[in-house]
Amino acid sequence: MEQQKLLINGERLKNTLEQFANFGRTENNGVTRLSLSEEDRLARDYFCSCCEELGMSIKIDDMGNIYATLEGLENKPPIVIGSHLDTVKNGGRFDGVLGVVAGLEVVRTLLENNIKPLIPIMIVNFTNEEGARFEPSLMGSGVLSGKFEKSIMLQKTDADGITFEEALNSIGYAGKEEARLKEATAFLELHIEQGPILERESCSIGIVECVVGMVCYEIEVTGESDHAGTTPMDMRKDALFAANNLITEVRQKMSALDHELVYTIGRMNVFPNIHTVIPNKVVFSLEARHKNPAVIKQVEEIIQGLAQSSFKEGCEIKTKKLWDRDTVWFNKQICDLLEQSTKKLGYSYKRMVSGAGHDAQFIASYIPTAMVFVPSINGKSHSEDELTTWEDCEKGVNVILETVLAMQKKF
Amino acid sequence: MEQQKLLINGERLKNTLEQFANFGRTENNGVTRLSLSEEDRLARDYFCSCCEELGMSIKIDDMGNIYATLEGLENKPPIVIGSHLDTVKNGGRFDGVLGVVAGLEVVRTLLENNIKPLIPIMIVNFTNEEGARFEPSLMGSGVLSGKFEKSIMLQKTDADGITFEEALNSIGYAGKEEARLKEATAFLELHIEQGPILERESCSIGIVECVVGMVCYEIEVTGESDHAGTTPMDMRKDALFAANNLITEVRQKMSALDHELVYTIGRMNVFPNIHTVIPNKVVFSLEARHKNPAVIKQVEEIIQGLAQSSFKEGCEIKTKKLWDRDTVWFNKQICDLLEQSTKKLGYSYKRMVSGAGHDAQFIASYIPTAMVFVPSINGKSHSEDELTTWEDCEKGVNVILETVLAMQKKF
Repeated sequence: MEQQKLLINGERLKNTLEQFANFGRTENNGVTRLSLSEEDRLARDYFCSCCEELGMSIKIDDMGNIYATLEGLENKPPIVIGSHLDTVKNGGRFDGVLGVVAGLEVVRTLLENNIKPLIPIMIVNFTNEEGARFEPSLMGSGVLSGKFEKSIMLQKTDADGITFEEALNSIGYAGKEEARLKEATAFLELHIEQGPILERESCSIGIVECVVGMVCYEIEVTGESDHAGTTPMDMRKDALFAANNLITEVRQKMSALDHELVYTIGRMNVFPNIHTVIPNKVVFSLEARHKNPAVIKQVEEIIQGLAQSSFKEGCEIKTKKLWDRDTVWFNKQICDLLEQSTKKLGYSYKRMVSGAGHDAQFIASYIPTAMVFVPSINGKSHSEDELTTWEDCEKGVNVILETVLAMQKKF
Repeated sequence: MEQQKLLINGERLKNTLEQFANFGRTENNGVTRLSLSEEDRLARDYFCSCCEELGMSIKIDDMGNIYATLEGLENKPPIVIGSHLDTVKNGGRFDGVLGVVAGLEVVRTLLENNIKPLIPIMIVNFTNEEGARFEPSLMGSGVLSGKFEKSIMLQKTDADGITFEEALNSIGYAGKEEARLKEATAFLELHIEQGPILERESCSIGIVECVVGMVCYEIEVTGESDHAGTTPMDMRKDALFAANNLITEVRQKMSALDHELVYTIGRMNVFPNIHTVIPNKVVFSLEARHKNPAVIKQVEEIIQGLAQSSFKEGCEIKTKKLWDRDTVWFNKQICDLLEQSTKKLGYSYKRMVSGAGHDAQFIASYIPTAMVFVPSINGKSHSEDELTTWEDCEKGVNVILETVLAMQKKF
C-alpha cells in the first residue's frame, strides 16, 4: 500500500457534503433534517445508494442505525467510521454528516486506488443523535451501548405525539436487532468542534482525548412577594436580588478554579414575573463541565455552599443535583495513532477535550474509540451560521484515512 | 353637635366588613371578588340595600360607579367617602371595601345620633379599581377624571373575551353618564397601607400626602448563544452574566440615592432559556418610585448609563422607558385637617406617602382629596394573608368621621 501518498479527493468530499445539505436545506443555507423525518429518509436513501454503488453490504438494526461494510481480506471485526445524519432545527451543513461522509470518502479513495483492506471497513449512521425531535439525544448509540432501554425509546414521542417506533416504521428503516454493532476493531468519529478553540489556536485538527464530565444543578431561591411600591428596600426578601448575589458569588469562586472549567446558567425563571411585584422565587440551572472529577467536586462544594451564603438577603436557598455524568476517556492507543497520522500529513493540531456529547462517548464503552475535530468558524454550531472550511473538512478526512491505513498494519 | 364624643361602633364595623367578605370568600379566608363578577354584583346589591335602609338616594353612572347620598341641610357639593368593592383573585378582606364601609359607618353613626349634616355626605364605590379582570386598574375613577376614554374602556376584555360593557350590563349596573361625580367639597379615601411602614413604626394612622411618582424601564441585554460545553469562559458573550453585573451596578448606585426610593426588578426573561445554551438575551423590567422628581431623574440617569457600563461583558445594552407618572400631591388643607382629627382622637400617626396607586390619585385632579392609611400586618395585601386589626380599622373610620364633622364647620 502506498499510504504515504494516498489522499482523499477534496472536491468530491465537498460535492458529497453539498449533496447531503440538499436534504432539508433551509433558506439561509442551513439544514433542518430532524431524525426519522422525510428529509432524514432521503438522506438515508442517498447514503445507502452511495454505499451500494461502492459494493458495500448494508444492514439496518432495530433502532434504524445503518451499517455499510466493505469486506476485508481478513475476517476481522471492522474498523468503523461514522457519525449521524440528523440535524437540529435550523442546524448546519457539517454537524454529524461530516463523520458519515468521511467514511464514504475513505472507501472511495481506497477503491479508486484499487486498495482492498485487510480489515473490513464499516460506515455507520447512528439514529437520532441530536434528540431534537425525540428526546433523549444519542438515542441510537445509547441503545447499542446499553445506556438506554429500547422499549422505552421506541415509545418516545415528538411534539405531534408520533412515537419513535411509528416514525421509524413509516420511513422504512426499522431493521433487526441481530444487525446491531457488536464488536469492532475501532470506532473513529470525525466531527466539527462546535467550539472556538481550534480556530483561536490556528489548528486544523483536534485529537479528542475525552468527553468531559459534567454536573447540573437547579438552585431555587425563595423570598417574599411584596408590593413594589409600598415595601421599603430594607424590608424586602427579594428572590431576584438574592439570586443575583449568588450568581456573583458563584462566578467569583468558580473563576478561581481550573481555567478549563466551563459553567453556564442557561435557564432562569422568575416568579411571579410581574413588574410591580417583588419576586418571591427564582429558579435557575447551573451546569459545569471539566475532565477532572476533582474539579467537578470543587464545583459541587461551591454550589452546595450557596445555602449558607452571607448574601442571600433573608431568602431560603435550595440546591438540587439534576444529574451528572463522568468523563469518558477515549482509547489512548488510537489517540496516539491519530496524532502520528496528523503529524505525518503535516497538519497543525491540538490534543483537546470535547465539551459536547457525541455518539462516540457511548460507543467507547465497548469498542476502542477516538474522535477527530475540525474547526468551527466562530465556534458556531446548531445554527445556520455553522461553518467549517472545505480545506479543514478535507484535512480531517485525510487524518481518518491515514489512520485507517495505519490500523490495517498495526491492529 | 357633640363631635368630641362621637365615635363609630367598632363591632358594627367589623360585622359589616365580615358580611362583605362573604361575597367571594375563599377557603383560606381571603376574597375573590373580581370586578363585575357575580360576587361583585352581590356586594353591590348589599351595599345599595344598606344605603337605602339609611334613607340615602342612589345613583349609578355609565361606568357602574355607585353613589349614595345622604342629604344635607345646605345644598352644597357633598363630602365624598369611598373606595372600591372589587378585589384581585385570592385577595384580602380589607383592600378597598374598608373605604366604602367607612362611609356606611360614618352615616350610621350620624343618623343614630340624630345628626343631620349641613353638607351632604356621599358614599362612592368605584368600578374596577384592581384591574384584575379588565385592565387597566383605576378604570372607574380614570374615566371620571378624563385619564381614560370611556369608549375604549367599554371594549376591554377579560380572559374569556367578555367585554367590560357586556359584563357591566349583565350584572345590571350600567347607569347614566349624567350621574357621574362632577363636583364635591372633598373626597376622603380610607385604605389599608399595603406596606409595612405603619406597623414597623407602631402607628395606627397614616396621613397620606401623595401618591409617589414612578418610572418603569425595560432593559435588554444582547449577547451570543454558544454551546455551554464547548465555549471557554473568556470567549463568551453571556447575556445573563452581563445582566447580573448590571443589576449589581444598579443596586450599588441606587442605594446611594434617597433612602425612601424603592426600586424593583419584578420581571426577567432569559432566552433561549435552555440549560445547555449560553443565554443570548435577557430582558428585565426596572421600576422605581419616589415622591421627588429630582430623585427619579437620578434614577433615569443611572439606568440610561447602563449602556456604557464597564461590566457588560461584550454584550449590547438597550434601555427603553415604558412609562412614567408624576407624583400626585393631595390637598394640604385636608391633610392638615386629618392630622388634627387624629391628634384629637389621640391616635399614633405618621404623615407618609403612598407607593401604590389608588382611585384618590385620579379624583385629586378635580376634587380636593386626601387619603388615610391603616396598618397592614406584615405589609401584606393582594393576598389571603392580608390583615388589619379591627381596632385599627375602627380608628381609621373614626378619623374619617371626625374629619367629616370638622368639615361641616370649616368648609
